[in-house]
Amino acid sequence: MNNKDFEILDKAIRRVKDFPKPGILFYDITGILRVPSAFKYCIDKMCEIYSSAGIDAVAGIESRGFIFAAPLAERLGIPMILIRKKGKLPGKKYSCSYALEYGTAEIEAHVDDIEKGSRILLVDDLIATGGTLNAAVNLMEQGGAVVTDVFGVIGLPFLNYEKTLGPKIKVKTLVNYNSEN
Amino acid sequence: MNNKDFEILDKAIRRVKDFPKPGILFYDITGILRVPSAFKYCIDKMCEIYSSAGIDAVAGIESRGFIFAAPLAERLGIPMILIRKKGKLPGKKYSCSYALEYGTAEIEAHVDDIEKGSRILLVDDLIATGGTLNAAVNLMEQGGAVVTDVFGVIGLPFLNYEKTLGPKIKVKTLVNYNSEN
Repeated sequence: MNNKDFEILDKAIRRVKDFPKPGILFYDITGILRVPSAFKYCIDKMCEIYSSAGIDAVAGIESRGFIFAAPLAERLGIPMILIRKKGKLPGKKYSCSYALEYGTAEIEAHVDDIEKGSRILLVDDLIATGGTLNAAVNLMEQGGAVVTDVFGVIGLPFLNYEKTLGPKIKVKTLVNYNSEN
Repeated sequence: MNNKDFEILDKAIRRVKDFPKPGILFYDITGILRVPSAFKYCIDKMCEIYSSAGIDAVAGIESRGFIFAAPLAERLGIPMILIRKKGKLPGKKYSCSYALEYGTAEIEAHVDDIEKGSRILLVDDLIATGGTLNAAVNLMEQGGAVVTDVFGVIGLPFLNYEKTLGPKIKVKTLVNYNSEN
């Protein structure tokens, strides 16, 4: 992250107080989608970071992750894998449950979409605790692939996602915020 | 649709029987995402169709619509609007309920994302009955915009989406299938 990244994107990102629940300040990337130059800036930066990184496929996390993963996969000319909530993918799937603040969630990926030995980049709009991404790493490992990189447009490093994801995964973000409200 | 479109995409589209319920043959665009040349072909064709169509913004329907809407919006340099299921968007919203086979569903769009008088292209992966798209047309109209065009990678014209959407909206698809199974 540098100052230029921060200024362009910080200006476009919409803040919504008390969403999805009281006390949370939600950083909303739909503000970026309203400003074509800001969205293009994100995709250009992603291409710059990953065009020589030896990535074999881009996995997008449902559903805001799809918005950034799809243009990148298309530009790099590599496959895109969908990581979706339980019950959304029609084919044979790997599945992984993970803990939420209250209860659990489950995500899935198509068995056929994961190439054994491939190097995967995970893409989401925002990286918070890293819990969903960590479950996505597990899904890729079930298919014999390895997650080498994780990208989020926004990072909330005070929620310790780097610790959750561990030292082997390179995490990149374009904008970081250092408190939740 | 021409023969070249049909062959390239038909080969990539995965068929899954009995999803999401018995008797339905599901046409799965994740097969297109596995084949970079097929995905690029879709985005190139969309650009070809819409680069001179006078579109002011692209609205993607959650969540597979996002995958095709995002690269198009980025390439055309115009805003992308998210149309999402109830409760997912954080800001002030327009809302529209519509009938499903059993019960109802509700979709939303941010008030701030819709420019009065703008010409909107709706994008989804597959057009079936057109019920969701018709509700999306209503959302855009609530914001004073007009849907001039609808795009789906796949069309199922035997489900009569053209009748549902009416004669004023131009509908384009790349591949059509003429029966559900």
